[in-house]
Amino acid sequence: MEYIDKLLMGDKRTCARLISIVENNEEEAKNIIKNIYKYTGKAHVIGITGPPGGGKSTLTDKLAKELRNRGKTVGIIAIDPTSPFTGGAILGDRIRMQDLATDPGVFIRSMGTRGYLGGLSKATQSAMKILDVYGADYIIIETVGVGQSEIDIVKNADTVVMVMVPGLGDDIQAIKAGVMEIGDIFAINKSDLDGAGRTAAEVKAMLDMDSQKDRRPPIVQVVASLNKDIDVLLDEIISHMEYLKSSGELKKRREDNARMEIMKLIETEIMRIVLQKSQTNQVLEKSISEVVDRKTDPFSASESIMILFSNNI
Amino acid sequence: MEYIDKLLMGDKRTCARLISIVENNEEEAKNIIKNIYKYTGKAHVIGITGPPGGGKSTLTDKLAKELRNRGKTVGIIAIDPTSPFTGGAILGDRIRMQDLATDPGVFIRSMGTRGYLGGLSKATQSAMKILDVYGADYIIIETVGVGQSEIDIVKNADTVVMVMVPGLGDDIQAIKAGVMEIGDIFAINKSDLDGAGRTAAEVKAMLDMDSQKDRRPPIVQVVASLNKDIDVLLDEIISHMEYLKSSGELKKRREDNARMEIMKLIETEIMRIVLQKSQTNQVLEKSISEVVDRKTDPFSASESIMILFSNNI
Repeated sequence: MEYIDKLLMGDKRTCARLISIVENNEEEAKNIIKNIYKYTGKAHVIGITGPPGGGKSTLTDKLAKELRNRGKTVGIIAIDPTSPFTGGAILGDRIRMQDLATDPGVFIRSMGTRGYLGGLSKATQSAMKILDVYGADYIIIETVGVGQSEIDIVKNADTVVMVMVPGLGDDIQAIKAGVMEIGDIFAINKSDLDGAGRTAAEVKAMLDMDSQKDRRPPIVQVVASLNKDIDVLLDEIISHMEYLKSSGELKKRREDNARMEIMKLIETEIMRIVLQKSQTNQVLEKSISEVVDRKTDPFSASESIMILFSNNI
Repeated sequence: MEYIDKLLMGDKRTCARLISIVENNEEEAKNIIKNIYKYTGKAHVIGITGPPGGGKSTLTDKLAKELRNRGKTVGIIAIDPTSPFTGGAILGDRIRMQDLATDPGVFIRSMGTRGYLGGLSKATQSAMKILDVYGADYIIIETVGVGQSEIDIVKNADTVVMVMVPGLGDDIQAIKAGVMEIGDIFAINKSDLDGAGRTAAEVKAMLDMDSQKDRRPPIVQVVASLNKDIDVLLDEIISHMEYLKSSGELKKRREDNARMEIMKLIETEIMRIVLQKSQTNQVLEKSISEVVDRKTDPFSASESIMILFSNNI
């Protein structure tokens, strides 16, 4: 496979081309990942997430620059929202990243939140693997907001940085709570604003309630726009990887991810088989009408299809 | 089934008890829904969603009061965020709703975003069906934010009201775009604030780009806290249901929902069977280690398990 050698040698065009393929062609994506999988697992994957308005993009930039200053190569996957009407990315090319984009040690890719047959989470995972083989020492995944879909994406990261800012409203405070547990490190960005200390104290108070964790996530106050304390944040990220390795947590996380990935693939494949069989498919269509007409219910309908499927596989 | 008669007669305690059961016991939930399903399909389900800070709770209250003024009964399901540490709802009991709570024509239920084995979306759907049989003319589902999980919840509604407010940042603007298509009606809340006209114009511009839709979602400017133009919003909601019925869209949506629901149930059941078989389960555990050690890849692993499963069902 010529492309594997090129990717292993760090050919940027091959890397870009392979990511485009995994974005657009599920069958080809499968072949590529099968072929390169054995070369993966070297990069330290950092997920940057948090509520909108937290300055995650700026923080990602500065973190990438700090990594470059330390001689490391960086791959960045920025999850951009896409308009459902135009099909194009709203934020478009990231002008702010242009100085990074010309750096040969940095690879940047924007991925939209729509248009992936197999789901964005899957496309992101595949892109991560390609960047890993390409030779990125660090891969940063930056999300736009924080919700279930963003959690699905960043939970494949080794280190999740949850970015907070002072002075967000009550609603955001509430959302924050629901996703606090995925943060390995809490970065309070815009810490030159009033209320930064209070936000840090609130995060600390929430973490205090969680006595079950082996490791207490550190809280780092930064000002990304001024590049202030980004080095401290990076030190914490590196130290988190050391913890993951020494505690056995890295192995556990990678096992959990492998389990989820295999299960998801089996699920997709079985559903494909179910829908492919014309007999189960006909019964499905009939059941849908019956459910809508209240002649049956979804549970009874699915049970009938299951019996048919089991008898005919 | 005694509880069915009680529920059909509008017994509030039975309604509350049944919702608690479907929240906590998947097997019992299944039996309850099977038994009551034929009585469902009467209520008009309204989903209230939009970015945090939009005043969705206040809007839900005022909408419920307007419905009561028109002699209609109302069921409200408020999706509350839950702390991962305490397990309890952060917003807790909704003090703001206490005047509604004492009204016999209103049933209010908060549901947390965690702790549902079968997923919150499924628990919400079951609760909707119970409220429907209980006799609610209208059921309002109110989400906290807007993301994939919220979309999964409100897409079961007949009418989705997307709540916007003037002066949200760029990030929110971007998130908005990704979820615009699920809005049947756009409510610009806090329309007494500066920039309300601009926000309405922005929404209008986005809708203008979507020429494919048969129906153009109306934009309604309201001030929920002052009860201003809530009646106009309700008129639009009622008129949307008339459109759904006359265009055949209601039937289509209910068919789509039935399809999704049946498919999801089959998926869950098949995965249960896969994991139950000790043989496939053993291979799964072995495969996980091999994937982590890069001796195989997730695709090849899932293919092996599928072959084993097909030969042994």
